[in-house]
Amino acid sequence: MDAVKECLRNFPKEARELYLNDAVPYLDGPLSPLQVYREWIGPNKPCIIRNAFSDWPALSKWNPTYLREKVGSKVISVAVTPNGYADAVNGDRFVMPEERQMTFSSLLDIIEGKVKSNGVFYVQKQCSNLTEELPELTGDVQTHIPWMSEALGKHPDAVNFWLGEKSAVTSKLYQPATYRQKEDGNFETVDEEDSTKVPWIPLDPLNPDYERYPSYKLAKPVRCIVKAGEMLYLPSLWFHHVQQSHGCIAVNFWYDMEYDIKYNYFQLVESLTNAVG
Amino acid sequence: MDAVKECLRNFPKEARELYLNDAVPYLDGPLSPLQVYREWIGPNKPCIIRNAFSDWPALSKWNPTYLREKVGSKVISVAVTPNGYADAVNGDRFVMPEERQMTFSSLLDIIEGKVKSNGVFYVQKQCSNLTEELPELTGDVQTHIPWMSEALGKHPDAVNFWLGEKSAVTSKLYQPATYRQKEDGNFETVDEEDSTKVPWIPLDPLNPDYERYPSYKLAKPVRCIVKAGEMLYLPSLWFHHVQQSHGCIAVNFWYDMEYDIKYNYFQLVESLTNAVG
Repeated sequence: MDAVKECLRNFPKEARELYLNDAVPYLDGPLSPLQVYREWIGPNKPCIIRNAFSDWPALSKWNPTYLREKVGSKVISVAVTPNGYADAVNGDRFVMPEERQMTFSSLLDIIEGKVKSNGVFYVQKQCSNLTEELPELTGDVQTHIPWMSEALGKHPDAVNFWLGEKSAVTSKLYQPATYRQKEDGNFETVDEEDSTKVPWIPLDPLNPDYERYPSYKLAKPVRCIVKAGEMLYLPSLWFHHVQQSHGCIAVNFWYDMEYDIKYNYFQLVESLTNAVG
Repeated sequence: MDAVKECLRNFPKEARELYLNDAVPYLDGPLSPLQVYREWIGPNKPCIIRNAFSDWPALSKWNPTYLREKVGSKVISVAVTPNGYADAVNGDRFVMPEERQMTFSSLLDIIEGKVKSNGVFYVQKQCSNLTEELPELTGDVQTHIPWMSEALGKHPDAVNFWLGEKSAVTSKLYQPATYRQKEDGNFETVDEEDSTKVPWIPLDPLNPDYERYPSYKLAKPVRCIVKAGEMLYLPSLWFHHVQQSHGCIAVNFWYDMEYDIKYNYFQLVESLTNAVG
């Protein structure tokens, strides 16, 4: 059994020796679909692409005045929490954010600090809310990333509009493939149904509990900063955590992963780590 | 430990459920480089491509008369064995074939049955013998597969000419990445230096010794027949065994594998199977 544990400990070390980067590389401009596949999608490595959407009107247009004019009166669903942690484990349960219905203008009032409010407000949906709920804004962006769509042979499964203030963080680490969205109207506590299907991870990477999760000492997080005008390619099956330096907007293009050889291997590692405890 | 073994036993089952085919699919004509990458190289799945080299003069030209005329007087290196098994394990050693120097014409005499000879004769080199030793024949083929070279972003590391009679088989299963060619002039017995670097596998898939290798009962070999004019894409890290139905020529384009995420996972599985014994 020690030999098995040793194999599992060596695995990420060998990954770093073989092909993983210590930092997320920057690319200058979009690649060809084939290059994207061969160099990033295939090896499942993240990268940051500059000048990938310089032609989007959103880059210059999207400011509070414009957004109030275009979508100010629209009612949107905002995740509200007392502390910015949209999901936090409490004992053997976790608390989901309040999903508050409010106009876009009222949200901007809070983000801009014009209105004081208890709680941290974050629009961070996975339901293609940009195309479904805010079609007025789609003319300012592209509704897919052409070279990524061509590489993957499909269009995104969701295009999401995220708007959050400085304190908003994603405290959840999850497998994109199995991510599920709850549409609760109020704070509530919900039992975790099945840990393999809803892999909420009760570890806060900003303040890890090494006593409860000693293995996390072995983790080597890769940190990167994505600035305005930059695009992050985050591969499937990468556990991740997001913080914002200030109030900002992000557009997220979600391409569903393939359940292929890499997922097959990922599941093996997951089941083995469960087996060795 | 039983749980670990169970994980490893489930792994190939899940692979078949998730993405692997029971049979090798046939494609009609070459794909685009991007499709090749996305559908076959990325998922590491074999396929047979028809009409991929219909324009090669070799298809109509390569017969004994033509070959005698073009390269008959050239001296080539032929693997000679008593039984067609180019490498056979004997106790804790294995016997390599005799590498006999002979003219192409003398080899054809034997393949055609014009001359009787003891032993089985097979030209099966990995040293780019087509381009290096038989440049007279390269005008009849392409020296690379354009859509595969574009997909992989490089040219083949070796282009090999294989010519064998019916009884010639490859009895070795190996990792392409670590395959090594010995250049011995005579029969000899050689110690296996390091089983992870020279992964000769002492199991004959045509006559497996289940008593010594009981796990092989769990193997589900995928069988396919590659006919004249067809091309087999055999991904890296696939253990394989080749037989010929009759004397025939094959051209092998060898693109070195990438030591990437898939190799990383492969090594994990290899080290785990060693760890559980």
